[in-house]
Amino acid sequence: MTEKTYRVAVAGASGYAGGEILRLLLAHPQVEIGALTANASAGDRLAVHQPHLWPLADRILEPTTAETLAGHDVVFLALPHGHSHQVAAELGPDVVVIDCGADHRLTDPAAWAKFYGGDHPGSWPYGMPELPGGRARLEGVKRVAVPGCYPTAASLALAPALAAGLVEADVVVVAASGTSGAGKSLKTNLLASEVIGSASAYGVGGVHRHTPEMIQNLTAAAGTPVSVSFTPVLVPMSRGILSTCSAVIKPGVTESEIRQAYETAYGAEPFVHLLPEGQWPTTGAVTGANTLLLQLAVDTDAHRLVVVAAVDNLTKGTGGAAVQCLNLALGLPETTGLSTVGVAP
Amino acid sequence: MTEKTYRVAVAGASGYAGGEILRLLLAHPQVEIGALTANASAGDRLAVHQPHLWPLADRILEPTTAETLAGHDVVFLALPHGHSHQVAAELGPDVVVIDCGADHRLTDPAAWAKFYGGDHPGSWPYGMPELPGGRARLEGVKRVAVPGCYPTAASLALAPALAAGLVEADVVVVAASGTSGAGKSLKTNLLASEVIGSASAYGVGGVHRHTPEMIQNLTAAAGTPVSVSFTPVLVPMSRGILSTCSAVIKPGVTESEIRQAYETAYGAEPFVHLLPEGQWPTTGAVTGANTLLLQLAVDTDAHRLVVVAAVDNLTKGTGGAAVQCLNLALGLPETTGLSTVGVAP
Amino acid sequence: MTEKTYRVAVAGASGYAGGEILRLLLAHPQVEIGALTANASAGDRLAVHQPHLWPLADRILEPTTAETLAGHDVVFLALPHGHSHQVAAELGPDVVVIDCGADHRLTDPAAWAKFYGGDHPGSWPYGMPELPGGRARLEGVKRVAVPGCYPTAASLALAPALAAGLVEADVVVVAASGTSGAGKSLKTNLLASEVIGSASAYGVGGVHRHTPEMIQNLTAAAGTPVSVSFTPVLVPMSRGILSTCSAVIKPGVTESEIRQAYETAYGAEPFVHLLPEGQWPTTGAVTGANTLLLQLAVDTDAHRLVVVAAVDNLTKGTGGAAVQCLNLALGLPETTGLSTVGVAP
Amino acid sequence: MTEKTYRVAVAGASGYAGGEILRLLLAHPQVEIGALTANASAGDRLAVHQPHLWPLADRILEPTTAETLAGHDVVFLALPHGHSHQVAAELGPDVVVIDCGADHRLTDPAAWAKFYGGDHPGSWPYGMPELPGGRARLEGVKRVAVPGCYPTAASLALAPALAAGLVEADVVVVAASGTSGAGKSLKTNLLASEVIGSASAYGVGGVHRHTPEMIQNLTAAAGTPVSVSFTPVLVPMSRGILSTCSAVIKPGVTESEIRQAYETAYGAEPFVHLLPEGQWPTTGAVTGANTLLLQLAVDTDAHRLVVVAAVDNLTKGTGGAAVQCLNLALGLPETTGLSTVGVAP
Repeated sequence: MTEKTYRVAVAGASGYAGGEILRLLLAHPQVEIGALTANASAGDRLAVHQPHLWPLADRILEPTTAETLAGHDVVFLALPHGHSHQVAAELGPDVVVIDCGADHRLTDPAAWAKFYGGDHPGSWPYGMPELPGGRARLEGVKRVAVPGCYPTAASLALAPALAAGLVEADVVVVAASGTSGAGKSLKTNLLASEVIGSASAYGVGGVHRHTPEMIQNLTAAAGTPVSVSFTPVLVPMSRGILSTCSAVIKPGVTESEIRQAYETAYGAEPFVHLLPEGQWPTTGAVTGANTLLLQLAVDTDAHRLVVVAAVDNLTKGTGGAAVQCLNLALGLPETTGLSTVGVAP
Repeated sequence: MTEKTYRVAVAGASGYAGGEILRLLLAHPQVEIGALTANASAGDRLAVHQPHLWPLADRILEPTTAETLAGHDVVFLALPHGHSHQVAAELGPDVVVIDCGADHRLTDPAAWAKFYGGDHPGSWPYGMPELPGGRARLEGVKRVAVPGCYPTAASLALAPALAAGLVEADVVVVAASGTSGAGKSLKTNLLASEVIGSASAYGVGGVHRHTPEMIQNLTAAAGTPVSVSFTPVLVPMSRGILSTCSAVIKPGVTESEIRQAYETAYGAEPFVHLLPEGQWPTTGAVTGANTLLLQLAVDTDAHRLVVVAAVDNLTKGTGGAAVQCLNLALGLPETTGLSTVGVAP
Repeated sequence: MTEKTYRVAVAGASGYAGGEILRLLLAHPQVEIGALTANASAGDRLAVHQPHLWPLADRILEPTTAETLAGHDVVFLALPHGHSHQVAAELGPDVVVIDCGADHRLTDPAAWAKFYGGDHPGSWPYGMPELPGGRARLEGVKRVAVPGCYPTAASLALAPALAAGLVEADVVVVAASGTSGAGKSLKTNLLASEVIGSASAYGVGGVHRHTPEMIQNLTAAAGTPVSVSFTPVLVPMSRGILSTCSAVIKPGVTESEIRQAYETAYGAEPFVHLLPEGQWPTTGAVTGANTLLLQLAVDTDAHRLVVVAAVDNLTKGTGGAAVQCLNLALGLPETTGLSTVGVAP
Repeated sequence: MTEKTYRVAVAGASGYAGGEILRLLLAHPQVEIGALTANASAGDRLAVHQPHLWPLADRILEPTTAETLAGHDVVFLALPHGHSHQVAAELGPDVVVIDCGADHRLTDPAAWAKFYGGDHPGSWPYGMPELPGGRARLEGVKRVAVPGCYPTAASLALAPALAAGLVEADVVVVAASGTSGAGKSLKTNLLASEVIGSASAYGVGGVHRHTPEMIQNLTAAAGTPVSVSFTPVLVPMSRGILSTCSAVIKPGVTESEIRQAYETAYGAEPFVHLLPEGQWPTTGAVTGANTLLLQLAVDTDAHRLVVVAAVDNLTKGTGGAAVQCLNLALGLPETTGLSTVGVAP
């Protein structure tokens, strides 16, 4: 029996997220890669922008329009924030649309207005199957909002403890990140000369746009409002997020209870793993993999649970999560075409 | 008038801390470099271990003994933890001994026993002049315990807010660090192949040996016991620590009050600077400089003060602080021979 | 129809080459991973040494013995140079043995003696199908000597021009390499602190052990003795070789003739590509891919052909080539289980 | 006796070369830093562009005009190629003008026209004192053309062997370089995400603009036309050039003769050193230092001399050479204010 093949378009194929989606789609057995679109780069060979995607080198980037995206079963949107909404509006209701931008992640119009400004484009089913109830919300849907990379690490790191009521609803997240999360933007602070040999924080003090998404996820998990102090730190690597997440442990809670909560939450998950005690995650181990690795420790003196999560911001943090959602939306096995094995060292 | 010249020995001259001390001493106008000693590397040319110290290339490393260290005005100890105590015991009381190891930093024998084990070697004047009362404790002394690199960043980042009673005595520190802080140890996790492209946490959950030193400094500054949740994160760079430090702001405290406290604390300091609003520190900007740069933000939603500090772990974090203490101990101008300018980009 | 599955062992599974072979085997549809062996690390969980190979995390490393390697259809040897010979001697003639070490690469006992010392272990079919006549020598064989990483880049970069008689038989190769090619050896010069921010040459002046292998390949291609001046340069990255190879162009030869020779040699190759004019290879584009990318230029003033080749030393430079040879030895399609797409950026 | 102080302006103070000049001038005892000028960045605080130059943080960048540059004893020009000529024309003949751009390096108008285009701006005394006769040409001059970074490494690596007639006049240079040599240009290929984990060649085939400068220097040294095959390779570091330079050895020449030629050439030089046999240069060892380190090997099989040179492209490769030339032009000791010690690791 021949398996069905789905025709897939990628809008924003010249950027890092688009490139990662394409890298993964090339290994997906039930996908045919259709239109690849871009904005300023329309007309270029794909090889100019994605030289690693050898088999697609001679594809020509088309403009991102309703016409070029028509005739596909699935459309991935890897566009700058604020652009997905308009493009999606022109795609039919039967097309599976998977948005890697922020447009449809937030459910609270006030949070959208505060962090992004303008009218709230509305929210779509949120593409994090590993959250409580997350998978059921994605099966067979036609629209998916792929999570942000930092919220992926922080939410999966803290949701089990908050959902089980083991820690206070007041968390601190500091995440070291590679530069690819910032995209191909031509900014001085993203130049190799500036980044190599240097670490720097940005968006400090609760102003990073991924903060409300963490609050939304963790509040839902906790069932009570959670406050999040989030600081992203840029470090000299291309891919990877290492997120150090902590919260005050409620009186009387033991490390064993906490560990049990994580094992219950993730024991059956294909892409999220609590490591054995004594082994700590590294971002190197998940480079290119649709895998999030976790480890936790209890600091009895400081009364804090510390959870460290490692994820590749472009794979499980964006493109891999997008393909995982594709599988759920189409009713395919969730792991189809996705590798859990990092390219290391 | 000719200025006096002091004869200086460096014990542990083959390591990273010893090399940094020598790099700085070569630019110090009142120092003559005497014996350079080592343990396993005794007998080698210095160039084998410190190829960047060209003017000293042909010096031969001597064994670290009372004899080789005799006849100097100043002895720097850059030895593995636990070794300084024995070497110092053999140096006369008139020799200025500046210990870059941990042996004499902690005042609490119980903290020593818990984190290092064995008998407490006792405490020496603590080499952080920028702490409240810190400078007076160092003038003209014969023994100095140079602070650890992580405690330097965290203590200077949080002491002003705690000393002024503006934040709760419960702090969270997550510090991204280059690898040179771990020394030249031949460990697999310090190999370039493992570190490049990867971030990893270690010593999670309050077990890193620098934790009690932070507690000691911040408790002294606050005048009340401070709890510290500290997580170090290894990132792919050789030098530099970027420390993200946060604490809950007390009710009613404003950002302006906090900023004022830092300006008061550091406005006259030659080596510690609060940056103008809007400019955030990077470790690249302080590479090789005896400078610690700070910036702060108030997260009104999470009710937290977030302070980010950048320091070169080998310079202001070790060797530069050691030379700064040398100046104070000898009664020289504190900035003699020290550059505040980083080698960037 | 179910496809046949081959049972495969990997000796040396704790190292970088062994890890890469396993990473690729996990994606190979006709392979069952059997014994994983090591020397000093025998008894460890594989996760201790290969944390990125999540699906094999709980496998226990066995000692490398005739017993543990028995009962497999294929044995990969990823051992330090000089060890393969003894292990291979104990494996039956029907087992496919693929040696990633140097033991069986050189055909000339004098070259072996000069560069490795001791008795020549003899030569096996050489695992570079893209050389003239290379593929035919590998079909259905039971023993394969996988090429070295530097010789892979240099040989494929220069063989077409030499084979076509377009350049003089006197070549210069300077190759920038990441550190993983040096393995997990605990050496000071391989520490992250030493490598990050620094480039260095080693094995200068014709003494690197990969030199005679280049000479062997290029002499065979040219049909006349070729001299090779080879300098490897260590640069701050984990994976990748960028090899700059040049030779004097024979009088009257045009760039178009040269380009034609490369197109003829590699036009049908699945893993070796001459890029379109104007596009230059980067090692980033081939990270984790079994791909070698080439570009060439003619320097009319200096009368030299310059060919630049990019390859991942662990993939097409070792583990990927090993799996490619496995496919040829077993009569499977040569590309089975191998990706040509790099993990970039 | 008080030493004279010279008032110095820097045009192009917002870029990497300008920043390095300022870093070094801050340590120069006979310099007062006057006007700092820029083009697009005029009006900005210097800290926006050079956050490492703490003592100059609040200086305001002025526009680059005859007025802002007037009233200085010395003017450094750190401008994009093609701009120095016009600015210099407006400065009086008694002002010492030190041009870090390419405008006045080439003596051959045809070479200028071929590589830069347009009218030849004429040549100035060439700022490489270590070349044969180089120092005498610089003493007391009012105009200096500071060499390019790649030509510095290649010329000093090969001039002694060519000048002594020990090698053929046909050389091959492959240089691994950090990204700061390309300046702060906002180009996709200079983004950290593209550079980290990747090596790439550019300007291959004799088209890099530094090629004619190498030919000019080496031809002068050899006394006969020298052909140069030059390939620059971008590697993931911010600073540093490691240049691998080779030439065919003339019949009968011994390694000892060659080594002697280098010792004669550089034995008395303060900034250029032939390392002892067995020690190879690394760029890390010269980071921030006005030092060029060399080592050589004779490949008897390939009949080639291979010389490896390490230099910091921004220091001895640009800003340090500029200050060295300032000293010569003003009649100060040549080493005034310059450190030979790298910031390592």
